[in-house]
Amino acid sequence: MQKILVANRGEIAIRVMRSAREMGIKTVAVYSAADRTAPHVRYADEAVFIGEAPANQSYLVGEKIIDACRQTGAEGIHPGYGFLSENAAFAQMVREAGLILIGPSPEAMEIMGNKLSAKAAALKYNIPMVPGTEEAITDVAEAKTRAIEVGFPILIKAAAGGGGKGMRIVDAPADFEEQMQLAVSEATSAFGDGSVFIERYVSSPRHIEIQVLGDTHGNIVHLFERDCSVQRRHQKVVEEAPSSVLTPAIRAEMGRCAVDVARSVNYTGAGTVEFIMDDDLNFYFLEMNTRLQVEHPVTELITGLDLVKEQIKVARGEALSFKQDELSITGHAMELRVYAEDPANNFLPDIGTLQTYKAPQGPGVRVDDGFEQGMEVPIYYDPMIAKLITYGSDRAEAIERMIRAIDEYQITGITTTLGFGKFVMQHEAFRSGKFDTHFVKKYFTPEKLVERNDDEELIAAVVMEKLLAAKPILTATLNQQKVASGWVRNRREYL
Amino acid sequence: MQKILVANRGEIAIRVMRSAREMGIKTVAVYSAADRTAPHVRYADEAVFIGEAPANQSYLVGEKIIDACRQTGAEGIHPGYGFLSENAAFAQMVREAGLILIGPSPEAMEIMGNKLSAKAAALKYNIPMVPGTEEAITDVAEAKTRAIEVGFPILIKAAAGGGGKGMRIVDAPADFEEQMQLAVSEATSAFGDGSVFIERYVSSPRHIEIQVLGDTHGNIVHLFERDCSVQRRHQKVVEEAPSSVLTPAIRAEMGRCAVDVARSVNYTGAGTVEFIMDDDLNFYFLEMNTRLQVEHPVTELITGLDLVKEQIKVARGEALSFKQDELSITGHAMELRVYAEDPANNFLPDIGTLQTYKAPQGPGVRVDDGFEQGMEVPIYYDPMIAKLITYGSDRAEAIERMIRAIDEYQITGITTTLGFGKFVMQHEAFRSGKFDTHFVKKYFTPEKLVERNDDEELIAAVVMEKLLAAKPILTATLNQQKVASGWVRNRREYL
Repeated sequence: MQKILVANRGEIAIRVMRSAREMGIKTVAVYSAADRTAPHVRYADEAVFIGEAPANQSYLVGEKIIDACRQTGAEGIHPGYGFLSENAAFAQMVREAGLILIGPSPEAMEIMGNKLSAKAAALKYNIPMVPGTEEAITDVAEAKTRAIEVGFPILIKAAAGGGGKGMRIVDAPADFEEQMQLAVSEATSAFGDGSVFIERYVSSPRHIEIQVLGDTHGNIVHLFERDCSVQRRHQKVVEEAPSSVLTPAIRAEMGRCAVDVARSVNYTGAGTVEFIMDDDLNFYFLEMNTRLQVEHPVTELITGLDLVKEQIKVARGEALSFKQDELSITGHAMELRVYAEDPANNFLPDIGTLQTYKAPQGPGVRVDDGFEQGMEVPIYYDPMIAKLITYGSDRAEAIERMIRAIDEYQITGITTTLGFGKFVMQHEAFRSGKFDTHFVKKYFTPEKLVERNDDEELIAAVVMEKLLAAKPILTATLNQQKVASGWVRNRREYL
Repeated sequence: MQKILVANRGEIAIRVMRSAREMGIKTVAVYSAADRTAPHVRYADEAVFIGEAPANQSYLVGEKIIDACRQTGAEGIHPGYGFLSENAAFAQMVREAGLILIGPSPEAMEIMGNKLSAKAAALKYNIPMVPGTEEAITDVAEAKTRAIEVGFPILIKAAAGGGGKGMRIVDAPADFEEQMQLAVSEATSAFGDGSVFIERYVSSPRHIEIQVLGDTHGNIVHLFERDCSVQRRHQKVVEEAPSSVLTPAIRAEMGRCAVDVARSVNYTGAGTVEFIMDDDLNFYFLEMNTRLQVEHPVTELITGLDLVKEQIKVARGEALSFKQDELSITGHAMELRVYAEDPANNFLPDIGTLQTYKAPQGPGVRVDDGFEQGMEVPIYYDPMIAKLITYGSDRAEAIERMIRAIDEYQITGITTTLGFGKFVMQHEAFRSGKFDTHFVKKYFTPEKLVERNDDEELIAAVVMEKLLAAKPILTATLNQQKVASGWVRNRREYL
């Protein structure tokens, strides 16, 4: 492969191109009308326009991606995450076009893309699953019997569902019938299918996932875990590696399970096996993501590997250059997703122009971004501006560096999750490692935010910024006067 | 220590403040008239004006630094490198003022600050020295006898000298008298002292230095080596860790010697023991630098330690939290000093305004800088704009990342060493690891530079930049036409 096309945009497109460039591989960007001037377009050696801004007219149109490869002579395609990255039909189309998809086979994507077939594949290897029904049920009496067997609290889940629709938590058998009927009727009206699953409800779940890597020679290793329990709107916002709760024995056991799940579909390339973990550190298979994850940098920092390079090497047919027992964890890494979202307004996406944009730097700080000062955040795509990643010799240092980096980050014109990230890093539950996926619901209210940058407050923010920039000088001048006049020296008392 | 003053400017001032901030320590900046709006001033919690631009009216005036501590209540002083960092009289003044200098004792500075006393201290521990005379000589006949004992080629060096004055390389005994007389007369006119030393001339020397760290409880460890053999004007410009030539046995032996040199002066804090190494990997003690070095980040990256935090902990009286055998090298790190200098013009300092300034980012890249877009590079100080540091799992990856990062770095308005850095990274001698301190003299001529950004060429550069930014789109459009018209696909042939 002398040239690859990156079928994505934003930070991940640049992330992929950086590794390709380091390997001496030429890169081709694709871009929509909204992304004509985007940094990922300039970063590439060549760029191909593929259509209008809505993704279903550009980034999601497989044929246009393959055409762009033909035009430019690109031999491989890196799909990034999102868009076509887990689309088995696209993977098949790439194969038929005689091109190389830098990712797993269409067959592996197909199996892992469906909850039932994924579960079935994993069961063959005795991977722990949340106790519950294996098939959909509609009969209330039968469902109740099964629920009692599984043990309360239980979760009723629409078989056809997603996004929380037709979902009910039931604490005791007495409430079961009523809640089941509500779930069935909700599922029927939302999906036209009233059948449900029943499973044990994990009340304080942690989201722990294992990074795996397989080659085309039958080797599969795991690259340890990421803890992604801090979520808002059921989506990750803070991730770290390693997890603060895993013991070496559990880590090894989860790793073994993840490798087995990958083996069940002859997985090649980088993939992630997701688990939930309860208070007693029991873990249960959730699903497998057949792509590079947003949060892959934390794994890179603790292992010293470049996951994109590993993906490309596997796609070139190379065998992994290391064995499981040659891998180890060094230090601790933390990631904050910097979203154009308003944490004070239920994390609703914010739009606008990046009036000021300056990323932090220095020891232990990595920023993967796809924006620059003066750019507009388009409304068409995921509102993630950047990933702020810190590395330290231990968890405490990674956290302190994250706070320092958040403080250094200069963004005005758009409301972001930076202030929220600082709230998380300073919160005792997070610092102690005792938190679960309900962290935001349990602890966060907008009043907790120290900083905000609403569009309405932009002028105030700019003025404030100028004042802050001058603050050290003003403070010192004031201090000189205070000292001269014999006033106390501790500035907290007079500022 | 709740608050420290950083008696420096530019990147190192910010570097130190970052670590202090992560430790919850307040910071005080000092600034000259030329640095009123400099980033290090804004980064601090407080800032104190200390005088006019020339360093001898501000950054070099110990009394003003101590006054600034008194005004702000700072309890400790971090001197960075350069300026007052190795000034024993200043260290003594700080001690007498009841403040804490984050660095070694005045006694250690004093001994190591003088070549003869440093050598004498090291000799007690049997540290290898370049064979030669231990005392200054003026008599030509005696000198020749000694030179023959030492072995040719030999180096004649002015005892009072520095900067190459009164220095002569002599290849054979027949030339000795003439060269010695020239050296003596040069030394006499330059320093008023004609006495010289004679030592074996190491014709292909590598500059290898060992980082050491000592606490106030008698513990001293070494943090492995840095190879700083790529130099211009006898000053380092590219540094790396580990060195590509050291064996584990030599590394351990050099480490032991460095710890002994430090022990000879009861060294506390971070210091560096410099050696030269000949073709046969014999190493000889050169000197000890009693401060944090410019190139300390490469050591941080391969050890996972934060050297500034370690310095502060030692200054607080804490014992080192690790032992020698708990330390190890992980990966490889490379540093390029980005100087405002013109490599095409014998690396003469360049002045002007940073019209464009955007640092590279992404995996394995760290930038420590003290400048920002729109800033002028002051003529008063060291012309270093930034340190570009890359990290990889091995040397090859660190080099490829450096090239990628150099390509990403956007600087216009000032000529820098970036293009020179790329030349080094791409040169076979450097890549193979077979190079010495004569690298620049041997291989570099200005024609080798791919890029230049002279002030005179600024307008052209800006136009070029715009064109380059549009290039991927232009290329792809052209490609589309070529493909449509059935032309060959390889762009090299028609671009």
